[in-house]
Amino acid sequence: MHVMIIGAAGMVGRKLTERLAADGRLGTGDVERLTLVDVVAPTAPPAFGGAVEAVTADLSAPGEAGRLAARRADVVFHLAAIVSGEAEADFDKGYRINLDGTRHLFEAIRQEGLREPYRPRVVFTSSIAVFGAPFPERIGDEFFLTPLTSYGTQKAIGELLLGDYSRRGFFDGIGIRLPTICVRPGKPNLAASGFFSNILREPLVGRDAVLPVPTDVRHWFASPRAAVGFLLHAATIDVAGLGARRTLSLPGLSATVAEEIEALRRVAGERAVALIRHEPDPAIARIVAGWPRDFDASRAEALGFRAEASMDEIVRAHVEDELGGRIGG
Amino acid sequence: MHVMIIGAAGMVGRKLTERLAADGRLGTGDVERLTLVDVVAPTAPPAFGGAVEAVTADLSAPGEAGRLAARRADVVFHLAAIVSGEAEADFDKGYRINLDGTRHLFEAIRQEGLREPYRPRVVFTSSIAVFGAPFPERIGDEFFLTPLTSYGTQKAIGELLLGDYSRRGFFDGIGIRLPTICVRPGKPNLAASGFFSNILREPLVGRDAVLPVPTDVRHWFASPRAAVGFLLHAATIDVAGLGARRTLSLPGLSATVAEEIEALRRVAGERAVALIRHEPDPAIARIVAGWPRDFDASRAEALGFRAEASMDEIVRAHVEDELGGRIGG
Repeated sequence: MHVMIIGAAGMVGRKLTERLAADGRLGTGDVERLTLVDVVAPTAPPAFGGAVEAVTADLSAPGEAGRLAARRADVVFHLAAIVSGEAEADFDKGYRINLDGTRHLFEAIRQEGLREPYRPRVVFTSSIAVFGAPFPERIGDEFFLTPLTSYGTQKAIGELLLGDYSRRGFFDGIGIRLPTICVRPGKPNLAASGFFSNILREPLVGRDAVLPVPTDVRHWFASPRAAVGFLLHAATIDVAGLGARRTLSLPGLSATVAEEIEALRRVAGERAVALIRHEPDPAIARIVAGWPRDFDASRAEALGFRAEASMDEIVRAHVEDELGGRIGG
Repeated sequence: MHVMIIGAAGMVGRKLTERLAADGRLGTGDVERLTLVDVVAPTAPPAFGGAVEAVTADLSAPGEAGRLAARRADVVFHLAAIVSGEAEADFDKGYRINLDGTRHLFEAIRQEGLREPYRPRVVFTSSIAVFGAPFPERIGDEFFLTPLTSYGTQKAIGELLLGDYSRRGFFDGIGIRLPTICVRPGKPNLAASGFFSNILREPLVGRDAVLPVPTDVRHWFASPRAAVGFLLHAATIDVAGLGARRTLSLPGLSATVAEEIEALRRVAGERAVALIRHEPDPAIARIVAGWPRDFDASRAEALGFRAEASMDEIVRAHVEDELGGRIGG
């Protein structure tokens, strides 16, 4: 089986690559070949017996998508996107990468199939940013898409294209709306959502972290480990059950900041919790107030997608996967 | 006031042109200039005191959208599209005209505004084809878009782009999902929905018509007169009340084929009804079964959009507007 990961240098892309390389399998098939694509050179995984090729490519550049489709991977993971903040700051770049890039990929696969029959599984990562306030406390599977950012708009358009190209039989597409990834590994960043991870990740290694919102703020989470599980599951399930509705809101954990802090206390003790500094930031509080807090992800659950059931699980997954099981500074 | 109609040669475009020319006003403003755009030369209205220019242009061709935006109309009606059947039969053409054409127009207006401030009202006609079965008996304002055709997909994407470009302040956009137009004037056509109009229009002038579905089939209608009213209203209302949700499901009449026939009987008598031949066509019945039957159009109603309240009104509007008040062969 030949697996292509577009956006392989990103956080989720790297974890997916590592998992595929370590497993050597995807569903019931052996992974014989990995093609890793990103705008910066992706790193080949160390422990993989099959063939690996790292490709530096920008989907939005003329001809690039066609060259990728010509490799005729059996499964294509499309994770490449510029993030919300950048898509909002640079309107042209957001549309070029997130909309044109996605459309070029889909169209290149169609053209490849017109040349010689080809119908890969395409897994497209969408986002809960396709929803915008006002919405119900729990957003159901039939609630309409109301993006309040250009990024969310571009993802919603990607979902529509995925649905139409799949309905027409050009590929077997499945779109998954990932919850906010927590605990996000790496350094604190300036994303408005960064604090959800910072207040766990930093105290777990003895560093302090800033909490800019009240502790009753609720949001929707899954671990990086769960995110990789979602991608693998999406690549292997029978998509017949999806009908024409090819994108799913995935399960996640609806939790408050207070619940994050309690989980941190249980896993790492009072000393860790004491490292969280409350510094209210009304601007961040306003942005976060427009974000989804909870989902009824019945469709995805019925299809076997599973996320963490508690914040303790999310914290422990981080300790195991990123800290080698060790807590403390 | 300078009004541009893109898609001016189509049925609704022509009626909108005639109405604007006859009124000489749009809301509280005088219409001083009309620019009529289509891929075939639009006809200038006979009774208009202002300046009229007919432009033959294809929005999807390079540079055309820019040349239109450079005219800096105050109101732009974007009605241009290829219809559902053609967009399904010719995938490339559908995306080129319905998606690229729309995106080029929106982007050209943005570029024109970057050159020198410009923020027109843009009225975009969407369609109930953005919805696809399964859906509730009455589709509400927050039901998600589930297109089952490429045309519906392209319109749904247009709605998303309209929302984002409006949110960013590049223009004042409003999208309206028109009900199926009935009675559609002209000759019978091969569209799957054609019979809804054929069974009224043809008997009203003494010709027979074929009914391919059972009489309990329910659908969602508005007259051409109502459609023009919707467009004028969309061009003039305060869009502040729309927030970021720029597209509305418009009011219409939910009626069965039996109710159409009863209205025909009341308006034109038993002899007209006798001209309808029942010839069941399972293929058409299957297509129609996937179409919306009713909407809860509360948002649009609250904003003052009004449609016909009965099939009798719809039939009478046709008799008045198309037949000069005369019934019979």
